[in-house]
Amino acid sequence: MKDDRILLSHGSGGKKSRELTERLFLKHFDDPALLLLNDQAVMERPGGRIAVSTDTYTVDPIFFPGGNIGSLAVHGTVNDVAMSGAEPFALSAGFILEEGLPMDDLERIVVSMAEAAREAGVRIVTADTKVVSRGAADRIFINTTGFGVLEDGLDIGGQRALPGDRILLSGTVGDHGVAVASAREGIRFSTPVVSDSASLNGLVGVLLKSAGSGVHVMRDPTRGGLATVLCEVADQSGAGIEIREEAIPVREAVKGACELLGYDPLYLANEGKMVAVVSRDVADRGLEAMRSHPLGKDAVIIGEVTSDHPGRVVLRTVLGGRRLVDRLTGDMLPRIC
Amino acid sequence: MKDDRILLSHGSGGKKSRELTERLFLKHFDDPALLLLNDQAVMERPGGRIAVSTDTYTVDPIFFPGGNIGSLAVHGTVNDVAMSGAEPFALSAGFILEEGLPMDDLERIVVSMAEAAREAGVRIVTADTKVVSRGAADRIFINTTGFGVLEDGLDIGGQRALPGDRILLSGTVGDHGVAVASAREGIRFSTPVVSDSASLNGLVGVLLKSAGSGVHVMRDPTRGGLATVLCEVADQSGAGIEIREEAIPVREAVKGACELLGYDPLYLANEGKMVAVVSRDVADRGLEAMRSHPLGKDAVIIGEVTSDHPGRVVLRTVLGGRRLVDRLTGDMLPRIC
Repeated sequence: MKDDRILLSHGSGGKKSRELTERLFLKHFDDPALLLLNDQAVMERPGGRIAVSTDTYTVDPIFFPGGNIGSLAVHGTVNDVAMSGAEPFALSAGFILEEGLPMDDLERIVVSMAEAAREAGVRIVTADTKVVSRGAADRIFINTTGFGVLEDGLDIGGQRALPGDRILLSGTVGDHGVAVASAREGIRFSTPVVSDSASLNGLVGVLLKSAGSGVHVMRDPTRGGLATVLCEVADQSGAGIEIREEAIPVREAVKGACELLGYDPLYLANEGKMVAVVSRDVADRGLEAMRSHPLGKDAVIIGEVTSDHPGRVVLRTVLGGRRLVDRLTGDMLPRIC
Repeated sequence: MKDDRILLSHGSGGKKSRELTERLFLKHFDDPALLLLNDQAVMERPGGRIAVSTDTYTVDPIFFPGGNIGSLAVHGTVNDVAMSGAEPFALSAGFILEEGLPMDDLERIVVSMAEAAREAGVRIVTADTKVVSRGAADRIFINTTGFGVLEDGLDIGGQRALPGDRILLSGTVGDHGVAVASAREGIRFSTPVVSDSASLNGLVGVLLKSAGSGVHVMRDPTRGGLATVLCEVADQSGAGIEIREEAIPVREAVKGACELLGYDPLYLANEGKMVAVVSRDVADRGLEAMRSHPLGKDAVIIGEVTSDHPGRVVLRTVLGGRRLVDRLTGDMLPRIC
């Protein structure tokens, strides 16, 4: 493309918009539904119920170790759809671009989205671009809305946690939060921390195949982190949750960064991790199934659902103490996703 | 709510986010799927194919005569879905809020969205909120993604325009563009111009009932206006389009504003108007059907599809001249939707 920066006219709906669409978006997003260039996509009716999730991504910086706002926008929404137990099949993408955004940056982002979508096996079926003048937005924001098909018989949601259920976590926590925070602040660690940003639908498939209707809740601990997600599940189900601090995997580099920066890993965002609440009888084989998948190789059982302290989350500390875990208060780390 | 402005912590995913969700969004968006507070909505499988459309709204100013960014975000996406011939049934909503946005403004916007959704008969099934710091966005941006069910047998799209087809326009053009531009610039006209922002799914229903499979193309002339939409249809179908200038209804106040501000009404955005390309034999009854609906009472036939000048749009002027109509070049009016 001859323009190397985004111009206001790229958002006009006119010639320049068309150019941007043809030379950039259609080049990378080549779904037949999208290529029709209608304002909407029409898809064949999928079997089963439909799960829908929307998320807008405003991560700062837009490029960070392990990903960028584009790959994140695909991973994050694929994961939100997958956490319902649905198989994601399509995404829409809505861009807000700031005038002056380097075209190369936009292309890198779009390429990452296309790659992430291919890897996750989802189509990007419809898209929209708006451009605002310099200063009216910070470089680029992306909304993705995802659609999945939910098989009959599955009923997964925060409200379904039951006393006796085991709580599975697919791997280490805090990686995404620390990766973005350190990129933003320009901090270098001796061991670099890389975002865990990834699409979890494959891992979900493996877990559901093994543990089936024994899977009661699945959640991806993004904004607010593991602590906030568990509080939400306790709240939605009215059950208590007890977790063991020592069982929660945290990379040494993440621990170090948290000490340095004053973060608590339990509240840091993750973008490629999931929590599953499963019935006790399927916990072991669910764990084994997760560990058989590359994104779940460090999966662990971190605790259980209890009829004690209904609606509350309790952390049993390494020293044997018990601490009430609350939702995130205030904003530890804005624009993490 | 005790906070009268948006704080960064309202976007944290923690307590303040929860407060904002409960006290504002759930108060106005009360769909059972959304009330479950999962990260995604699950809906019963609809019959037929699914149409999906996404649009991000960045209109400036956020309140304008005849609407605001919230009602516009519902109308615009409902219309994009409806233009495929599908019956819209659900929307997602993704908000980007600037720190410091007055809570009252946000509530007015959310109330307008809820009202617009009710009027259009669509559910708002899932939503997301991000907050960015002051200066990183301009007050509020909203993405809505809409879903509709498309009956079997309907095949509507720009590629289907055929020589001999008639071109119907549902009413006056330019109202939205002038309303927003005058609100932005603080210009007052003796006759105020009000945006035409409205959901067109009812009007589409009436037209399809009357003209059925004789309806080949439906488009809402938003960004880029009537001229750009007709150019797109000519391009997609490879057919020529001829329209008569005198047939295109433009309000006197809009004409006056265009002369004053240097706009061409053919390129101004509309948010409650549609163009339908229908086969000749159903044109009269299609027109009559549109006129029977409040949003189509000023509907007219403005021209026809021709085998002359393939891929091009020609305007027959009031003085009898013929002028080639091109897409919008540059950006006449940024942030109009």
